[in-house]
Parts: sequence; structure tokens; C-alpha cells
Amino acid sequence: MKVRTFALLPKGFEASGCACGLKKSGKPDLALIVSRTPCAAAHLSTANTLPAAPVKLNRLRMAAGVPVHAIVANSGNANAFTGAQGVKDAYAMARAAAQELDIAPERVLVASTGVINRRLAVKKIVAAMPALVRTLDARGIARAQAAIMTTDKFPKWCTAAFGAGGRTVTVCGIAKGAGMIAPDMATMLCFIMTDAAVGKAVLQRCLRQAVAQTFNRITVDGCMSTNDTVIALANGCAGNPAITGGTAEKALTQALTRVCDVLAKMMVRDGEGCGRMLELTVRGAASAQEARTVALQIANSNLVKTALSAGSMNIVGRIVAAIGATAVPVEEKRIKIAVRALRTKAATAEVSLGRGAAAWTLYTSDLTHEYVKINAEYN
Amino acid sequence: MKVRTFALLPKGFEASGCACGLKKSGKPDLALIVSRTPCAAAHLSTANTLPAAPVKLNRLRMAAGVPVHAIVANSGNANAFTGAQGVKDAYAMARAAAQELDIAPERVLVASTGVINRRLAVKKIVAAMPALVRTLDARGIARAQAAIMTTDKFPKWCTAAFGAGGRTVTVCGIAKGAGMIAPDMATMLCFIMTDAAVGKAVLQRCLRQAVAQTFNRITVDGCMSTNDTVIALANGCAGNPAITGGTAEKALTQALTRVCDVLAKMMVRDGEGCGRMLELTVRGAASAQEARTVALQIANSNLVKTALSAGSMNIVGRIVAAIGATAVPVEEKRIKIAVRALRTKAATAEVSLGRGAAAWTLYTSDLTHEYVKINAEYN
Repeated sequence: MKVRTFALLPKGFEASGCACGLKKSGKPDLALIVSRTPCAAAHLSTANTLPAAPVKLNRLRMAAGVPVHAIVANSGNANAFTGAQGVKDAYAMARAAAQELDIAPERVLVASTGVINRRLAVKKIVAAMPALVRTLDARGIARAQAAIMTTDKFPKWCTAAFGAGGRTVTVCGIAKGAGMIAPDMATMLCFIMTDAAVGKAVLQRCLRQAVAQTFNRITVDGCMSTNDTVIALANGCAGNPAITGGTAEKALTQALTRVCDVLAKMMVRDGEGCGRMLELTVRGAASAQEARTVALQIANSNLVKTALSAGSMNIVGRIVAAIGATAVPVEEKRIKIAVRALRTKAATAEVSLGRGAAAWTLYTSDLTHEYVKINAEYN
Repeated sequence: MKVRTFALLPKGFEASGCACGLKKSGKPDLALIVSRTPCAAAHLSTANTLPAAPVKLNRLRMAAGVPVHAIVANSGNANAFTGAQGVKDAYAMARAAAQELDIAPERVLVASTGVINRRLAVKKIVAAMPALVRTLDARGIARAQAAIMTTDKFPKWCTAAFGAGGRTVTVCGIAKGAGMIAPDMATMLCFIMTDAAVGKAVLQRCLRQAVAQTFNRITVDGCMSTNDTVIALANGCAGNPAITGGTAEKALTQALTRVCDVLAKMMVRDGEGCGRMLELTVRGAASAQEARTVALQIANSNLVKTALSAGSMNIVGRIVAAIGATAVPVEEKRIKIAVRALRTKAATAEVSLGRGAAAWTLYTSDLTHEYVKINAEYN
């Protein structure tokens, strides 16, 4: 499998992006990704009990199960905590894209990211749609990527390719971070396009596995967003025999996992203000769930994060305090903590609880002046 | 009841403090508080599953139930995650005080605060003990207070007095913060001295109530310490009729609560890097536990804390995201959020969940550059 950290749209996809005026800065804020051939779609979204309007819309669309042709996404406004009006606005956004693309509105998914609790200026999106559709291009993915960025410092994209039945299947993902990053899931949008021929159910299964191993193993600040969304679209243009299980499904899962893994690590590395990344493994737990609980408590501790930022061996004591703050009945004398490469850009920590054989690895960033600055000033 | 924000030791107590060399800075790091008359003692300590050695020692002492004469406390080293050696060192610290005071070692409680995972230089404590005991004084509490400070910027003390059976009972508390402040309990030490005549069981009941209303309602960074300790000593020197229940117990509980409330709010105001304090009330919850869960999720959100630091109305959207991150099944349309005085030193936020009649109030601080600086550099 070839994996490259740039975006190359699979066959049959086009994309575009523009600045429609949602961001005060005048930076790009509206993205469109389109397949002229209908796509099987898979979707995972936030576990937040107050999901944003676009998440509500996508869930209904996915439940209906019709093929999907397009994703329209904006940055600068999350369209969250906006009530019935927000849902109307999300529908209007999808309708505007559908109208210009001459497809049914049910075939458009939506996504938003940005400030919560402010009405979306959907008129600006509607007004920009004709030009956005006119500029769709097979190489337009960079413009789409730019238009979903908020506090991101660099674009997040990855493309993998593998052989299936004598054809080459391409999987391309773009994503945005960079704050509110926590499992189940990050404040993140991720759109994955593939030309694989695969049904909706299998695609959903593959995506779920890929996300469990990647996006659900990162945390920047422990904050769970209202807008987190991962969408995968598969249009079948690769001409491979339809993937229905077995080796072919494994290969697709692997490709999705590789792409999501690259994107997830980019998110942590670009976590707001991130100066140093930590790969944290908790071993010797009685269950994977227990290992995960302890790992999250450590990774989301501000005291651990500031010690990581300083490259200070105080981190060990702070890890101890975090371990003890969970309900897991650990014993002091069985705990082992090893921290390595603490002053490099990518430090590692291994914690052994001495209770069993289960383990969990996650990736997190440090807590820096820059994080405070970005999040105090963001609006 | 008279409440004053300074320390005035009740009758029969003496205190002292000195620099014994545990802190590299040469600042005071060893405190001693003594009553020549035996005291009933009450004790609450951290819920962390990896308690520090002094916490282990105090728990055994309290279980044995002998009267207490003294507390010896050090800063600069937490004597935590120090295994069997740490426990030996805690006993040696108590023994050194007992020897100089000519009392049984069982009658001495201990406390430590500072760096975790480093052996305590107990020899320095032993060597300093004769001079520390020689300088005991009824007005020595300021020196004791100075010696328990770590990153604290100002001393935390409070004295309350009330009448009981024609006598004046005095309650005096000193405390230290200022990081790792979270319910159950803060990284904090708090020593409360009273000349009330009261038995151990009643004193414990009063203290538990006072702490539930005060220290368990504050959070600075959501981090739970290995060393949190509240000790109350009552030596009976006020000469009041023994408090066994009823109005007298209520008055004592009230005095302890008033003292702890002042100390708790001082801790938040002096929370590491605190620029702005938030009084957060969650109402309309189905239960107090539910209100508390939501309040903690909000108060410990780094995104809420940075918005608080900036005095930005973005705080509302971030409160929404935090509410949705709990498992409480809230409904978007029922939620009301009011934030007031956001640019003053003491902002307030009221969140109504629209689910019931229960409420919970807690106090928290913002997340600032200063917090990152303090915790990155601390060692």
C-alpha cells in the first residue's frame, strides 16, 4: 500500500473552496466536494448530547440511506446551539448546493465548524454557491481543505492506494483540527473520498474500525465538540469488484486506517499551541477500557501537559497523581512509569499498572502559552 | 459570629515555622503546630488511590483514635509515590517532633506538599526540629503558614469566634493551594485549630459538613492531589460545656464552614495564574449529583477557562459544548445560559438544564499564561 501525505482525489471526484464572507479575516470558509457518480456513504459523528445542526441533518440523511453526491462544509461558524433556525439553515445550505448541482437535496451532506451559539449567515453561503460549483475541479481539493481550516496551522491530508481485483483503489482524506480534540471524537471534520466499489454497510463497518484505532486515540484538551464529523464517500469509479468482505474488506479497512492515522497524528501535532507530542501507552491493565480510562486521565491532566511542555521530569509525579485520580484500584508498588525522549518533539511514556495484560495507546499534545493565547483570542 | 481574614491561634495552641533546606529557594518549608493540652482530632484526606506517605500515616493514627498534640508539615516535597521508604520517612518526621516535644509519636500528625516521586530529605527535618520547637509561640502561626506555601502568592488564613455556654470559642484555619485544586479535594493542606471542647466523633461530623460545602465546591485545574489533607484539632481550652449535638454543634459546624469557605475562595483566587474567578451555578438538574457533574465538566474545560481568561462571550458556546460532553440527557431547547460581569475579577455564570429542581454551585479560576508558566517551571 502506498501512503502519501498529500491529497489526490480518487477518480470521479471534484472539489472546490472559496471565501464567502463567514470569516471576518476574509479567509476561505466554504468547501464543496462532489462525485457525479452516486456514492455509498458512511458517517460517524460526535457523542456530544448537544450536536450541531449539520450533525442532526446528516444523521437523518444517513438513516434514510439514499446515495450521496456531495458534501458542503463551512468554517467560521459551527451552526451549533442554534435551535430550529440552525437546522433550517443547515437544510438551506444543502439545498443551495443541490440546486446548483442539479441533484436532490437529500443527496447532500453538510458540515460546519467554528464559533458555537451564533446564527449561520446562510445567505452568504447561498450567494457563493454558483461560483463554487463553477470552480469544481479534480485538483480542487487543496482549496476545499483550506476552506475547512479554523485554528489549523497546516493542511491535513493523506492519500493511500491499494490493488483490488486488478484495479487501483484510491482513498483520500482531508481533515481539520485543532482544538477541542478528544476521543469520541475530536473537534474535527474529516472527509474521506474513495473510488472503491463498496456498499454502504461494509463501508460503515470499515470506517468504524479505522476511527476506533485512530481519531478515538487522540486528545488535545479533553474537550468534546458539538460538530465532530467523519464522512466517507465511495463512488465505485475504480471499477474493482464490489468489496463485500474478506481480504478486500481488510485491505479497505487498512487503507482507511492508514489515512486516518496520518490525519489524527497531524491533528495532535497541530493541536492548538502544541510544542511537544506524547505517545502514551498504558499497559498491565485489567481491561482495555481500564487502560483507556487511565490513559485519558493522564493525557488530559493540565499538570502533566505543562510538565510535558517544559520537558520536566516532574511529569512522572504528575502521572502518578493522575493515575490515582481514577477509580481504578491500583497498587503503588506495582506501578512502573518510563518516560523517554522527553525533550524531543515526540516524547513517549509507558505506564504499567501491574494488574493484567490489556493496553491502550493514545496521542496527546502539551499545554503551552500558545494554547492559552489561541483560545483566549479566538472568536 | 465574628469572621476575620487573619490567623489568631485559639487558647492553648502554639506554632512555628522555619527553613530546613527542603526548598532549593531557601524559603520556609517546615511548620509545627502544637497544643500542650491533648486534642480531639478530625481528618479528611484525598480520594486519590495513590495517597502520599503522610496521608497513610495519618489514616492509621486516626483509626487508632488516640488524642493528638501536634501537626508537623513540610513543603518542597510531597513524600508521595515514595513506597515503603516514604512511609518510614513520614514516621521519622513525626518521631522527631514527638521527641523534642516529649510526647508519644502516636500523638503527632504529619503533612507534606511539593514534588511527587522524590525521597524526602527527612534528616534535614530531624536536624531542624530542636530549633523549631524552641521557637514555638502563641503568635507563631504566620511562620507556620509561610512554611506550608508552595506556589501560593498570598497566605490563606481565617479566624472565627462564637459564644458557647458563656465562653468564646475560637476557630482558626490556615491553608495552602494553589494548583491541583479539584473537589475530593484540592491539592491543599488545611489545618484548623479550635479551643472548643468537643469529642472526636462530633468534630469529625462538623468538619465533614463544612468541607462538603466549601473545599469540595472548588476546582482550579481538575487535578486531584495525592496529599490533600484537612485536619481539625480541638483542645477544649475555651472551657465551654462539651459540644455533643444540637445548637452548639450547629454553631461549631457554622464556624468551621465560614472558615473553610473563606480559605476555599482564597485558594481559587490564588489558583495558579488566576486572573478571573467564576462562580458557576447549575440549576434545573434532576439531582444535585447531576448538577455537580455538569458544573465540573464546565469548570474543568480548558476552552471555557481560556474564554473566561479573555472575558470573551465565546464562553457561552463553550459551556454548551461542555454540557453536551456529559452523559446527562439534556435537551437543547430547555437550556438557558446567563453569564454576568464577565470582565470583572469575579464573573458569574448560571446554567439552567430545565430538567428538575436541583442545583450545585462551584468556584473556579481561569486558564492563563501564568498557569502554564508556573506549572512548566515548577520543580
